[in-house]
Amino acid sequence: MLERFKVSPQYQVRVPEASLREVVAAIFEKMGESPEKASTAADTLVSADLRGISTHGVSVTLPVYLRYYRDGTIKANSQWTVLRDAPGVAVTDGGHGLGIITGPGAMRMAIEKARAVGTGVVTVVNSAHSGAIGHHAMIAARENMVGVAMTSAGMYMHPTFGSVTRFGTNPIAIAAPARHEAPFLFDAATTVIAGNKIQLARRVGGKMAPGWVAGRDGVPVMEEVEPLELGEHVPLPLGSTREGGSHKGYGLAMMVEVLTTLLSGVQASMFEDTRTDKHYFSAYDIAAFSDVDEFRDNMDRMLHTLMTTPPIPGHDRVVYPGLIEHEEEQDRRANGIPLHRDVVRWFEQMSSELGVPWLATVD
Amino acid sequence: MLERFKVSPQYQVRVPEASLREVVAAIFEKMGESPEKASTAADTLVSADLRGISTHGVSVTLPVYLRYYRDGTIKANSQWTVLRDAPGVAVTDGGHGLGIITGPGAMRMAIEKARAVGTGVVTVVNSAHSGAIGHHAMIAARENMVGVAMTSAGMYMHPTFGSVTRFGTNPIAIAAPARHEAPFLFDAATTVIAGNKIQLARRVGGKMAPGWVAGRDGVPVMEEVEPLELGEHVPLPLGSTREGGSHKGYGLAMMVEVLTTLLSGVQASMFEDTRTDKHYFSAYDIAAFSDVDEFRDNMDRMLHTLMTTPPIPGHDRVVYPGLIEHEEEQDRRANGIPLHRDVVRWFEQMSSELGVPWLATVD
Repeated sequence: MLERFKVSPQYQVRVPEASLREVVAAIFEKMGESPEKASTAADTLVSADLRGISTHGVSVTLPVYLRYYRDGTIKANSQWTVLRDAPGVAVTDGGHGLGIITGPGAMRMAIEKARAVGTGVVTVVNSAHSGAIGHHAMIAARENMVGVAMTSAGMYMHPTFGSVTRFGTNPIAIAAPARHEAPFLFDAATTVIAGNKIQLARRVGGKMAPGWVAGRDGVPVMEEVEPLELGEHVPLPLGSTREGGSHKGYGLAMMVEVLTTLLSGVQASMFEDTRTDKHYFSAYDIAAFSDVDEFRDNMDRMLHTLMTTPPIPGHDRVVYPGLIEHEEEQDRRANGIPLHRDVVRWFEQMSSELGVPWLATVD
Repeated sequence: MLERFKVSPQYQVRVPEASLREVVAAIFEKMGESPEKASTAADTLVSADLRGISTHGVSVTLPVYLRYYRDGTIKANSQWTVLRDAPGVAVTDGGHGLGIITGPGAMRMAIEKARAVGTGVVTVVNSAHSGAIGHHAMIAARENMVGVAMTSAGMYMHPTFGSVTRFGTNPIAIAAPARHEAPFLFDAATTVIAGNKIQLARRVGGKMAPGWVAGRDGVPVMEEVEPLELGEHVPLPLGSTREGGSHKGYGLAMMVEVLTTLLSGVQASMFEDTRTDKHYFSAYDIAAFSDVDEFRDNMDRMLHTLMTTPPIPGHDRVVYPGLIEHEEEQDRRANGIPLHRDVVRWFEQMSSELGVPWLATVD
């Protein structure tokens, strides 16, 4: 993550992973989720915080989820049902439950199908937010599979040259296991920056770089500016402008829309009155394609070569998707997860309001 | 395609599609391909020219292919063999034949698997150039499926901050059918511009815009420059710079590398002494996910809404991936395919050298 998004150390409070999991799960139980579902939800969110993906961690998502549980946009303890089923694919209905809970289940279903026929694809419609979708892709990687996840969510992206938003930030994630190296884990919006980054920048006082956002009118903002509310500023497709390749970011977002949404038999998200999320999960059983040990060794060789590639002047090193987050995770497991002190105060307020346990802090 | 890449009308000669197909197929037969394979090869190339994708049409690719046939890099009439097979997936070996020939066959195999279990994935290793991979994705779309194609080819992309190239331009294509509207057909390198665009710009006198290329040292060139030879200039990952999101273009290229190459049980392309291409083809049977008629109607509604989205000031209209190419195809089928007069001269030379038919021109 770029420096401009990081919480300044003076405002940081470190909390132990275990305590954060316990408190977050307890909050989900108070919202009406079963203990098992609450634990899955906490796992998805805290995993993001452990990896340093604050845009999808507890501080940004949890207050929004609570509002949606309360106004009924998110259904607690929702029914997850299979609409269509074939040996390699399934379409399911999330019953307006949180994708951070149905996501792991849907990926496990894709894994079972992949074990049977080599690859499996499971889509979910009528869902709510799926969190950092790389988390779901990693579930497959831990089973010696390649995992892919995509989500259609929100309505923030103007098509290139368009003055009306037509797509969400529609992220794509892929995970593949290695042997000794940190796994390959790519998870990125098809916009230049994730939508949540605009809100995060407002919180931490960061600015929008040229080519990151468009105004409400769809015109790319090509100078550095203070971020406005999400909606007044929306992220540009990856590539920023037509000349920079924004038609590719837009096309990738549309690919996500087709695979998550239209393939599932529902209208494109742009026609929805009430916003729902749609997800795509797929797993590729490495053993059906080649040899698992060889694959993992080949991954190691590629990953090691990438991370030891000589950098261009002015930079320390080359990284690959998942490496920094893996290093962050080692640090945070050992030393606690840094939260903004305002977030810790918010948790304190929740503990008194909802009667959930108090969040511990690292001394 | 941006104006800077177009052949100036004063240098254009229009040739009829049928004549171009005939001559190109005859050239492939002279290289040792069977009539059927030669016809498939011509179809892939001429389809690109029909759609206005000159970077992957006859003018750019054919002279290179002939050189490679002659030096043995491309094997004529190669054996295409299945290495691994499961109900939903297969790994195949292209026997160093051209991907523009094996590609359609591999996609058809993926389609058969999708018909059986809902989705099918077929990879090809030891292959040569696959042309515009959107062509292969469209084969699935014509069968009421969603088609995806990816290729690992070349060694042109520096990872973000890296001073050594580690990936090709690794394109991703997806096609999905509509009912009345032109199909959705996205086909794009994970670099800002395709590698061939650098060569094409050199031919037509176009310049490189800021953020399009890096020098051999990996440092992004952030001003407008004359293009150097491919290799001296290499395309930057989509996003151009870290702040512009180049880590996403790099990550997407790596996704392509994992799905085409490592999943097939071979080493990453960066370790190859002799360059081969690897491909990934997948098909999703729409009927296994939902209702085909409903899907096509839903596509129409989305596509129509995109193309009628009010544009931002200074632009005529909004398009979607595949629309301009579809319009181009209508024009070129009716009025002939515009080739640079130097390309027509090259064909004349081939006719006298190889004894293939002479290319007709449109009066």
